[in-house]
Amino acid sequence: MGQTISEQILSHKAGQNVKPGEFVVIEPDVVMSHDSLTPSIIKILKEELAASIKYPERLVFVFDHVSPASTVGTADLQNLVRRFAREQNIRLFDVGRGICHQVLVEEAIAFPGAVAVGADSHSTSYGAVGAFGTGMGSTDVALIWATGKTWLRVPETIRVNFNGQLPAHVDVKDMALKIGRILSISGANYMAVEYHGIDWMPLPGRQTLASMAVEMGAKVGIIPPTGNLPEHLQKPDWLYIDSNAHYRQVVNVELEDLCPQVSIPHSVDHVSDIQDVTGTHVDVVFLGTCTNGRHEDLAEAASLLKGKRIAPGIRMIITPASSREMSKAASDGTLSTLIEAGALITSPGCGMCMGRHNGTLGDGDVCLSTANRNFKGRMGAPTSQIYLASPGVAAATALRGVISDPREL
Amino acid sequence: MGQTISEQILSHKAGQNVKPGEFVVIEPDVVMSHDSLTPSIIKILKEELAASIKYPERLVFVFDHVSPASTVGTADLQNLVRRFAREQNIRLFDVGRGICHQVLVEEAIAFPGAVAVGADSHSTSYGAVGAFGTGMGSTDVALIWATGKTWLRVPETIRVNFNGQLPAHVDVKDMALKIGRILSISGANYMAVEYHGIDWMPLPGRQTLASMAVEMGAKVGIIPPTGNLPEHLQKPDWLYIDSNAHYRQVVNVELEDLCPQVSIPHSVDHVSDIQDVTGTHVDVVFLGTCTNGRHEDLAEAASLLKGKRIAPGIRMIITPASSREMSKAASDGTLSTLIEAGALITSPGCGMCMGRHNGTLGDGDVCLSTANRNFKGRMGAPTSQIYLASPGVAAATALRGVISDPREL
Repeated sequence: MGQTISEQILSHKAGQNVKPGEFVVIEPDVVMSHDSLTPSIIKILKEELAASIKYPERLVFVFDHVSPASTVGTADLQNLVRRFAREQNIRLFDVGRGICHQVLVEEAIAFPGAVAVGADSHSTSYGAVGAFGTGMGSTDVALIWATGKTWLRVPETIRVNFNGQLPAHVDVKDMALKIGRILSISGANYMAVEYHGIDWMPLPGRQTLASMAVEMGAKVGIIPPTGNLPEHLQKPDWLYIDSNAHYRQVVNVELEDLCPQVSIPHSVDHVSDIQDVTGTHVDVVFLGTCTNGRHEDLAEAASLLKGKRIAPGIRMIITPASSREMSKAASDGTLSTLIEAGALITSPGCGMCMGRHNGTLGDGDVCLSTANRNFKGRMGAPTSQIYLASPGVAAATALRGVISDPREL
Repeated sequence: MGQTISEQILSHKAGQNVKPGEFVVIEPDVVMSHDSLTPSIIKILKEELAASIKYPERLVFVFDHVSPASTVGTADLQNLVRRFAREQNIRLFDVGRGICHQVLVEEAIAFPGAVAVGADSHSTSYGAVGAFGTGMGSTDVALIWATGKTWLRVPETIRVNFNGQLPAHVDVKDMALKIGRILSISGANYMAVEYHGIDWMPLPGRQTLASMAVEMGAKVGIIPPTGNLPEHLQKPDWLYIDSNAHYRQVVNVELEDLCPQVSIPHSVDHVSDIQDVTGTHVDVVFLGTCTNGRHEDLAEAASLLKGKRIAPGIRMIITPASSREMSKAASDGTLSTLIEAGALITSPGCGMCMGRHNGTLGDGDVCLSTANRNFKGRMGAPTSQIYLASPGVAAATALRGVISDPREL
């Protein structure tokens, strides 16, 4: 019987052919953790496991969650991790470098065919480069630090076929939201989601799709590493698209029929066509995150905002995904266009996505965000509301002050 | 008898010739407050004074202290001020526009000959455009809101004469620190400091000097609005340099003898020549604030960092003073140069200057900062240490990882 991409990767790592439902013990190639959870993982390693780190060269720390620190408490925890990284000879990308998922792709630390475990739920993002990327909790990650190994249940796979081409101002984010709408927030629980028909798609769009796989409960969201990718991200020889692979479910999406999608508070799969929510008042527009904070996303917004001003009373907060993405946007005029339109540009990182700094929402604030989650209170006050949409919808909404369709600008 | 600049401005406002030591009641032209204190001023106005606002058109609000919000608490207070500004028809510059003192100069709200009162100690900054700029507490400001008036004791004036020209890589900031070193932290208590011999100096340097006048206890720090300034900032006809003015003290500084100055923890007037502190280890370099966060400051740092990388283990945090300054730095490549050197760029505002977000210092952190204050714990943990210096020293220090002299790069 054939194998899905995830099954091939886990077979390769396990050194034996694996099948969905089996348990395997493997050695992850990469173990990522960020400023928010690394202190607790260090504590578990030292105090509960009383262990040392087996393969420090496989670990990577990225400071992105509260970057730079906004309290003495966060600053002290970051200093603790800095000291630990120095002592243990672990790679550390400090404040300002960017969001962990973006940095690991930029630095080619996550690579096609790798198993990349992160202490962050959006570690499914590494599926953008054809890695088996998945998030784990602090204790599981501490055990990988100590032993170099982890166990996984080989996931069943849902295949998503995208057919045709996207209409103008309809975005990869709309594809991601549409899949969430079809499968629901638990429709891919502990499964792999494998996306096909997108060999045309450049890397940033693949990152958008893969990051949001976890929003359907998926263990991984993976795009075959073929097509419109740089040389170093092309698939290894042992990985192939197997026409005999078995999928638990196949979902077909006709891109030509797709319109901008908006996820409505307070659940990611609570998705509408944009026409059902246009005119909704917002206070804040947020453009950023591992899902939509790259240069392409900022440039899309800038193309709609060029020479215009955002609506009075609206705050538009833009957080580039990484220093490289920010530098690109500075170099080609994107940043100036956005600033002149009235947007605020923050330091690279997760920004206001979890409400811990750089634009925390207050009581009753309504935010349209390009992020991946709109759970109650995620970005600040429990009474705030979060709509999720594409960078184009974000820009149109900032211009008009109400949720707006970029096709109608 | 002749009059100093401050005496002329207060005479003009009072409609009678005033003398140092007299008390006058005048109507300020501008009353500025920021996100940090405006909520308490509103409370005093409503609850203690039970008053309404006499001249809403003279008020201006700027959100810069925690901009954008980093907690639900700060977000809620900002929303309260937004609603109040809308109801009362008060100009509000929302998060992202920049530091109050920079914005009031950019928007020509502070102007030559004006009396500009701010609910912020660094309101002496407006002296950069030849305004009588001074800071007051919340209750005094609330009383101005209610009555349109305030009282002032006409300050005596210290005259500072700068002679000659600055050597390369010696900066206006070094002039400001040198004056602090000469006069001490209380040497200008409730006095005006009037700076002469700097007709050659463009506006940004004047802002550096004026902002730091309060660090010697000065009521105002004022530069005669003549010379290298744009047309709209030239002095009004009634204002003149009076050779018969009486000064309480005259200080002469020979610029050719000046070397880079560094203020040492924990007092602004604890100033050394740089050679006495070179080699001191730092963890963080901060480039920003109303004192040194303008395009010229960023460009000076970029000129030293171009094509190089900051030292490993050093964080360099750069906070542009305003959206315009940030946009200028984005447009001409300054921002990209700084990012590529490894610096982190935050949103415009006060940034980490008061330790409330965007780089709060942790326990034991040592910071070299281009800001104006190095009081114990100001930027975060009470055990942190702050050295103050120029943008050139900041860049040299970021490159080497220890306090370094830009003349020796």
